[in-house]
Amino acid sequence: MRIITISRQFGSGGRELGKRLAERLGWDYYDREIIDTLAAEQGLEPDYVKKTLANHGWQNMQLTYRNSFSHLLYDPGMSTQIRIREREILREIAALGNDCVIIGRDADVILEDFHPFRVFVCADTEARLRRCMKHELRRPEPERLSERQVLRNMKRIDRNRAHTREILTGRVHGDGSRFDLTVNTAGWDIKKLTGALADFALQWFEG
Amino acid sequence: MRIITISRQFGSGGRELGKRLAERLGWDYYDREIIDTLAAEQGLEPDYVKKTLANHGWQNMQLTYRNSFSHLLYDPGMSTQIRIREREILREIAALGNDCVIIGRDADVILEDFHPFRVFVCADTEARLRRCMKHELRRPEPERLSERQVLRNMKRIDRNRAHTREILTGRVHGDGSRFDLTVNTAGWDIKKLTGALADFALQWFEG
Repeated sequence: MRIITISRQFGSGGRELGKRLAERLGWDYYDREIIDTLAAEQGLEPDYVKKTLANHGWQNMQLTYRNSFSHLLYDPGMSTQIRIREREILREIAALGNDCVIIGRDADVILEDFHPFRVFVCADTEARLRRCMKHELRRPEPERLSERQVLRNMKRIDRNRAHTREILTGRVHGDGSRFDLTVNTAGWDIKKLTGALADFALQWFEG
Repeated sequence: MRIITISRQFGSGGRELGKRLAERLGWDYYDREIIDTLAAEQGLEPDYVKKTLANHGWQNMQLTYRNSFSHLLYDPGMSTQIRIREREILREIAALGNDCVIIGRDADVILEDFHPFRVFVCADTEARLRRCMKHELRRPEPERLSERQVLRNMKRIDRNRAHTREILTGRVHGDGSRFDLTVNTAGWDIKKLTGALADFALQWFEG
């Protein structure tokens, strides 16, 4: 079994890169929302998650799940339960034994003993802001955030991620040597980068 | 013209990786000593460097040059001159217009306008120490450093590099987004990594 974990800076395109990578390799794909939702779901109905995990095919479930359960993620009591349970969920995902790509959730640390190929995806602030503003343009105008609001979100989210990570590892988020590869998405077409990254990762697993 | 710059943590194997990469791609290769020596040489005989650069084929000159001119690098007055001149040397190397791999000397920053593919090579402290100790074993016993001495050197050299870099860029050394790719050499066979990196870099230049 081969696991690729994708950690990333907010706005770097890490999630898109990870999703495309899973598609290209034909591997299972798990992102933050899926894992959070599984954990929340498990909080409600313990057997459900195992049954569902055994069916695979998570690639297309992301949006449904996000819509059905997103309210749980904003319940503070539930979100603590989720943080505890997502660790178990990650272990169960790994125990399935399928090749997979996992986005976020510090899976690189939690699944260290499965020797994942640990990718960190970053970009300079300007490139990340450009990417985020493109996403904002696709939203209905009243919900659209300004550059200033996006920048503030970016800083807050990265600070939270760094904080969780420091608690978990005692190391600074983004410290190169904690990952096997750190990719800067600035200057890449994401599709091309997906191909280059897939080739690199497969060679790493052969080694 | 394509330039790959290799910045690295001490003991990460960055120089070896860069040298192998240049060989594999068939590109010109410049390392720190070559550039320092060229700069020192230019300090003595201004025309010499240009003439020599025009002849290419630096790949095999490293040791000769290091032996001939290393005393200059320990003369503090000369080393200041060298820091000033190496910038010009790097610009001249770039102006030659050949595909090349350049190790160190903050070439990624100094040659930013040539859009180099900027690689940072790192590894965790333990892996770097192992690599350094292997090198020590090849030295005659009286010159061999202890683990403790190597660790001290490692920290000092990395601190110096970080310092130079901060002065030059106002950024922290090893900050992922200042590079296009950060490679962790731990867990790789260097020859395999060379192949994977060459493929990745060529795809970057196509993009």
